Amino acid sequence: VLIDRDVTASLRRMSDERLVEAFHQLPGPRTRHVFEALDAGPQCRLVGRLPQRESVDLFAQLQPDDRARLLDEVPAAVSEQLLSSLDADAREITLTIAGYPHRSTGRAMSPNVVSVTATSSAGDALRHVRRHGATAETVYMLPVLDPDGAVLGVVSLRRLLFSEPETPVGRVMSSPAVSVPASQDQEVSARALRAARLIAAPVVDSAGRLVGVLTVDDAMRILSDAEHEDVARGAGSRPLHEAYPRTSVLELVRARIGWLLVLIIAATLTVNVLDYFEDTLAEVVTLALFVPLLIGTGGNAGAQSATTVVRAMAVGDVGGRDLPRVVLREVTTGLVLGLTLAVVGVVPAAFFADASIAAAVSLSLVVICVLATAVGSATPIVARQVGVDPAVVSAPLISTVVDATGLIVYFLIAQAVLGL
Amino acid sequence: VLIDRDVTASLRRMSDERLVEAFHQLPGPRTRHVFEALDAGPQCRLVGRLPQRESVDLFAQLQPDDRARLLDEVPAAVSEQLLSSLDADAREITLTIAGYPHRSTGRAMSPNVVSVTATSSAGDALRHVRRHGATAETVYMLPVLDPDGAVLGVVSLRRLLFSEPETPVGRVMSSPAVSVPASQDQEVSARALRAARLIAAPVVDSAGRLVGVLTVDDAMRILSDAEHEDVARGAGSRPLHEAYPRTSVLELVRARIGWLLVLIIAATLTVNVLDYFEDTLAEVVTLALFVPLLIGTGGNAGAQSATTVVRAMAVGDVGGRDLPRVVLREVTTGLVLGLTLAVVGVVPAAFFADASIAAAVSLSLVVICVLATAVGSATPIVARQVGVDPAVVSAPLISTVVDATGLIVYFLIAQAVLGL
Repeated sequence: VLIDRDVTASLRRMSDERLVEAFHQLPGPRTRHVFEALDAGPQCRLVGRLPQRESVDLFAQLQPDDRARLLDEVPAAVSEQLLSSLDADAREITLTIAGYPHRSTGRAMSPNVVSVTATSSAGDALRHVRRHGATAETVYMLPVLDPDGAVLGVVSLRRLLFSEPETPVGRVMSSPAVSVPASQDQEVSARALRAARLIAAPVVDSAGRLVGVLTVDDAMRILSDAEHEDVARGAGSRPLHEAYPRTSVLELVRARIGWLLVLIIAATLTVNVLDYFEDTLAEVVTLALFVPLLIGTGGNAGAQSATTVVRAMAVGDVGGRDLPRVVLREVTTGLVLGLTLAVVGVVPAAFFADASIAAAVSLSLVVICVLATAVGSATPIVARQVGVDPAVVSAPLISTVVDATGLIVYFLIAQAVLGL
Repeated sequence: VLIDRDVTASLRRMSDERLVEAFHQLPGPRTRHVFEALDAGPQCRLVGRLPQRESVDLFAQLQPDDRARLLDEVPAAVSEQLLSSLDADAREITLTIAGYPHRSTGRAMSPNVVSVTATSSAGDALRHVRRHGATAETVYMLPVLDPDGAVLGVVSLRRLLFSEPETPVGRVMSSPAVSVPASQDQEVSARALRAARLIAAPVVDSAGRLVGVLTVDDAMRILSDAEHEDVARGAGSRPLHEAYPRTSVLELVRARIGWLLVLIIAATLTVNVLDYFEDTLAEVVTLALFVPLLIGTGGNAGAQSATTVVRAMAVGDVGGRDLPRVVLREVTTGLVLGLTLAVVGVVPAAFFADASIAAAVSLSLVVICVLATAVGSATPIVARQVGVDPAVVSAPLISTVVDATGLIVYFLIAQAVLGL
């Protein structure tokens, strides 16, 4: 069924009253698919405002993982009402999913999975899928189980379809299977799916027994959300729960003020440094002219290093052991960058100030670039090692450290060059 | 077949000699899959160094879109050699794919697609797929064609499998299908696939005729590359073609120096501004203490606005017409943020300087936050409207404009408050 992205996009933006009205104007069979395609935010608003019978119907038609996600968002009273409206089986499945930790693979999987046994023939397996696969999340990836329910391998529907009917499944299955633990972080599982180019992967418990399936569309949603969150956090902001036009100014402020406060408090370090060198500044006021240029360049060079290293870690090219090698490479890069910029930077410096100040600015540019690349490359690696998200801490930490130390370097060099 | 991510990750990092050696040590049947899983960079290095017969074999076993991508990377002589090694059919298909513009959907699609007709029965369609689908990229999404080859709809293999054999395909197909034009930008098509949660979509020419299929694993790769590129560009750096440990310092410098130069030249604007206010600075040197704190806060607030707006545009929540509304909302947010920060910022200012300077700093914080949110929110929307990638221009443009105007605001306010 075609899901009209424009419909969901415009629903996301609507006020509560218009949302309910517009939703009721959708042709009957589409309501379910549009509801499915909405985020938990607008879903929650709809559930609270639609007639109870309708809410209950829409809720029951969701996939168990989407049900669990919606239950997290609605008030407790609504959540109980929704749960009690389900039949016993659906309720149990929903509660099982909701019982996995937040952001775990169990939370994103579907428990509706059809599996086959290694000893059955391809023809029998195909008949089994036809008979029992109607409600399965996918029939394209079939876990192959041993009698204890442990996953031995997987076989694709395609493989079954193209095999001679009498071939045993065990002979055509792929083994070992790429299976993901239910307790594993969703993003890690989604990346594994993407790396192996799979349509779906079996989800297993700690004993290796099949408990569900993670499909590629869930993996894509997980990775897209993770990307959004990383970008928002990299800029010191929390991701928004609702569509932008539906987010109040107060919510925007709340999502941002925390980081701004942290950063402004960290920035008082630069006030400290400049305060310490106030006599030098008073003697040669022209030195102040180059402060924004120098710390700006340091920030930019540091951000470039950090971005490159974060990416290299994400694709597995760089690990914790590589710290010295990576920093050495980045510092060398910083040295070349700094020397190049010094040649360029000396021109405005010579234009606005005298030769000795121009020399101090150029020399500082070199040292600041080396410093920035070192801090920019080391921070994400160390952050990962101590278990902090590199995307979150890199930018503020780098700018704070590089700004403050860069200014110290600048004034020390200036004092030396100018003989103060 | 399980693709060991660790194997490809370690191959990516190796020097040319070790790469060939390690590749030869892989068990025979795995070489093909490992080769497939590598990026074009290491693929290209392998093709240039393996015995010709081996290169030619590996090349022939790639999917046509992967072949086209590799042809872009290798020297012209190698490219001709590889092409001439293919049989006539494979060569024609490869050249067709290579003929589509870079980054178009045609470049990422597979031309190996099996389709069915609307008038055939589900049972016949299934038999047709079994007979002709062996080399198809996917058999799970089957385009349904009219006699002219135009796409009428799609039917999933699952639907066919669960339908009564005599049902006409036209009765069980989904129509209209989510199909993507071969000339359309890859990223747009990949996003459409993700939004509609599809395993694959038919790729059509300008007349709506089927020319290939775009699968979800290609869509995931496209989106992952696009994400990587956006992040790299947002930090003013070009994405790397090779694994980080394989990238030389010179290449790192080349990927970064351009932006740093642009930014440092733009930063001379701040030198200009401070030069203009040098007399004020000379009179009250303490004013210089707060320059990094003020422009840093402006940059942070601007980056938060830009990130939020870029995201809102990406998910379709904000369009060009929303410019005034968005800027108004951001400016209001900026005002609240600025007022909050002013209360906090006044403390260090009062500690390091006298009350009137503290007042000037606090007042400037408010104006700079308003300014930064306005520039930060307007820049991505305007950039999109004039056809420039918001992720590329936002950060440097915002920091340059906000830094320079922020300093002007600060000194004008200081002059007024201090009566200079």
